[in-house]
Amino acid sequence: MPDTAMPATLRFMLAARRCELQGLESLSFTCQLVTRISQLVHQLQKERGYSNIYLGNQASHYLHQLDAHSAESAAVERQVHECFMAMDTAQANAADRARLFNRIAYVLHGLDELPGLRRRIRELEPAPRQATQAFTRLIGGLLAVVFEAADTAVDPSITRLLVAMFNFMQGKELAGQERAAGVEGFSRGHFDGELQERLQHLEEGQERCFDVFSEFADGEAVALWQQIHSSDTVAQVISLRGIAKRTSANATVDPGLCELWFELNTRRIDAMKEVENHLATRLLEHCRSSIAEAHADLDNHRTLLGRLAQMDVGSDQALLFSVHSSTLDSAPQDSVGNHLARSVLDLLHEQNQRLQRVSDELKETRETLNERKLIERAKKLLMNDYRLSEEDAYARLRQSAMERSMRLVDVAQSLLAFAARKSQNTPHSDRGKRA
Amino acid sequence: MPDTAMPATLRFMLAARRCELQGLESLSFTCQLVTRISQLVHQLQKERGYSNIYLGNQASHYLHQLDAHSAESAAVERQVHECFMAMDTAQANAADRARLFNRIAYVLHGLDELPGLRRRIRELEPAPRQATQAFTRLIGGLLAVVFEAADTAVDPSITRLLVAMFNFMQGKELAGQERAAGVEGFSRGHFDGELQERLQHLEEGQERCFDVFSEFADGEAVALWQQIHSSDTVAQVISLRGIAKRTSANATVDPGLCELWFELNTRRIDAMKEVENHLATRLLEHCRSSIAEAHADLDNHRTLLGRLAQMDVGSDQALLFSVHSSTLDSAPQDSVGNHLARSVLDLLHEQNQRLQRVSDELKETRETLNERKLIERAKKLLMNDYRLSEEDAYARLRQSAMERSMRLVDVAQSLLAFAARKSQNTPHSDRGKRA
Repeated sequence: MPDTAMPATLRFMLAARRCELQGLESLSFTCQLVTRISQLVHQLQKERGYSNIYLGNQASHYLHQLDAHSAESAAVERQVHECFMAMDTAQANAADRARLFNRIAYVLHGLDELPGLRRRIRELEPAPRQATQAFTRLIGGLLAVVFEAADTAVDPSITRLLVAMFNFMQGKELAGQERAAGVEGFSRGHFDGELQERLQHLEEGQERCFDVFSEFADGEAVALWQQIHSSDTVAQVISLRGIAKRTSANATVDPGLCELWFELNTRRIDAMKEVENHLATRLLEHCRSSIAEAHADLDNHRTLLGRLAQMDVGSDQALLFSVHSSTLDSAPQDSVGNHLARSVLDLLHEQNQRLQRVSDELKETRETLNERKLIERAKKLLMNDYRLSEEDAYARLRQSAMERSMRLVDVAQSLLAFAARKSQNTPHSDRGKRA
Repeated sequence: MPDTAMPATLRFMLAARRCELQGLESLSFTCQLVTRISQLVHQLQKERGYSNIYLGNQASHYLHQLDAHSAESAAVERQVHECFMAMDTAQANAADRARLFNRIAYVLHGLDELPGLRRRIRELEPAPRQATQAFTRLIGGLLAVVFEAADTAVDPSITRLLVAMFNFMQGKELAGQERAAGVEGFSRGHFDGELQERLQHLEEGQERCFDVFSEFADGEAVALWQQIHSSDTVAQVISLRGIAKRTSANATVDPGLCELWFELNTRRIDAMKEVENHLATRLLEHCRSSIAEAHADLDNHRTLLGRLAQMDVGSDQALLFSVHSSTLDSAPQDSVGNHLARSVLDLLHEQNQRLQRVSDELKETRETLNERKLIERAKKLLMNDYRLSEEDAYARLRQSAMERSMRLVDVAQSLLAFAARKSQNTPHSDRGKRA
């Protein structure tokens, strides 16, 4: 029996199932996008690293490698671009896509600027830090797309993997920034106070990201990560971090360490990419199996409901499923006595319980994601309002949390709420008060 | 310039705007649905009341009125049914509609059972309480649809109104249940302990609902409500409540009070309907004006972006907006110097801020909605696990909150979290742990 010939109750039950399936199918596309973004970020990190070392050392023997990396980035760029273009911007009717589309617009804008940036780097125009910042902004934009993807995913298990992925990518990006900061210091022979603080901040940031990753990733991914963490490479990175912290204008080190630092960190970051690849594979597998499961569920459900509807065929009003009303009379205890009505109610109840469980699990996982976002936003607020550096803003937040024995995220939240109340009293943002 | 000819960045910026508009348009339909549901609930409440008094008094002189109310209910039923049928169940691709569709399926199932229930009532078959329960279940299902509508709305102001509406409808429904409980007691001449507890519970429930309503509704609605609250009718209802509480098997009152009680409460409930009508009007007005605003915004945005794109026409790669890269070179300070790129970034930033604000406001408002849901779920859990009545379950929750000086909602949340952890350790519900 085609869906349209079914009684309305059963049609809506099927529609609810179909919604879930459609949500999974669009999630599968999103996961592919995330996988490609992970590749692009990795390439851009490499290109940033080589741009940095090329500009810092003004050494033309790096130019060849840099060109190779730029070409690789450009190739992956085209794939991501294709992915964006395949998104049906006209069809989407969910309002939560507005944020995703806006993030993508930002990335597209950044990608448009890359050719110019590359040309300027080859003309040795920007300082290393400027070039680094330009790449970092674009990578930040790409990570924001992954964030939105994780925040709007509709399957709890896949959301958990996306949260692990986002945090791992974020941690890896901080590792890339640490590599750049180290190159800056070692090539100069020492790290000043500001640069040392920056290193410290990047190290702590990585820890937080990998903690969340470990909480949400599968066991295999965590094992892979621990393997990296206990490798010789990382031991050497840690010892170079120690050296960096002991340098000063009066206690410089051999700038030759710069190449060693770069080399070791590159090895570490490349190894991290393996973890990302593993997560990406898991994501796609999960999407495939969840979709297959949802398809089978839908088919079963359709068969079952079709059978229930057949039992209803004798009644004069096919649409209103009126068979219930006649059998209702025979079981006055609870007003639904007959087997057919009971089955439908059981199915409805079961479906409702399941949807509730899914939405609880989603809410909990997204909470973690949003904690990170709240802290980032509170940090930005402090940076803007008090003209603090990122490091100082974070230190201020952390101190305030310790003093009041509150969680960092709760301090961030109350800070933002306070700022929002303040801005609600200004004439410009009275949107929320119209009702 | 048609949207498709625009550079990709601008197209995605427009798509983000269009998402918001589409969200509003589908919200407008939802608000119409809510308005009709409010009518239907009101009719069903009347029909429940008259069924109740007809069954309680076995008085055939109520039959005529009951028939009239049943006919009115059936007419509004058809309108709601039409509304459901107009929902495009095949098109919807947002997973959050799954819950809504499932709720609608439940309502459709309940509506199918109404003709049988009506027949049985006329044959004086069910006890008054059974008939009341059957209507109450259906009304509960209709309220759940309103809940889902409020929970998935995408505009903060409209969400606030929907939260006010949902809570008011819920409060009015508890008033209807109070009317039924009173009819039961007064027609018997006294209220036993259980019935008195029930009255108390219904009275407190109304207070909570109307508190939330007052927090979220517009000033005019609140004024209307306060007018009812200080009316003579309500004063008389309050004094009858006092009488009910003083009755017992040894201290009965004239069963004639039953008609007075019914009459006064009916007047009170009918007056409440005016508040709902006001909220419904506000909802539709709000939808209309928000849609008009979003349309105008979209048009402005399209014109503005079209003009920006025109400035880009000279470049060889229309798609990649490559004009930036050439002008980028002239402003090395921050890698985006030119006016055009700056405008796009400003617009992106502004749009991002706005979307963030909207999602913050939505989150906050939905929080309130979910608090109610959490308490209801915790109550149901206690009712099932300890075989408690609704009143006792609520009393247990409240006591536990007082003892630990916690908010009721936090007690409910920890109870549910505990139950979820327990059930995660059983082999049947390992869905969340697959990742």
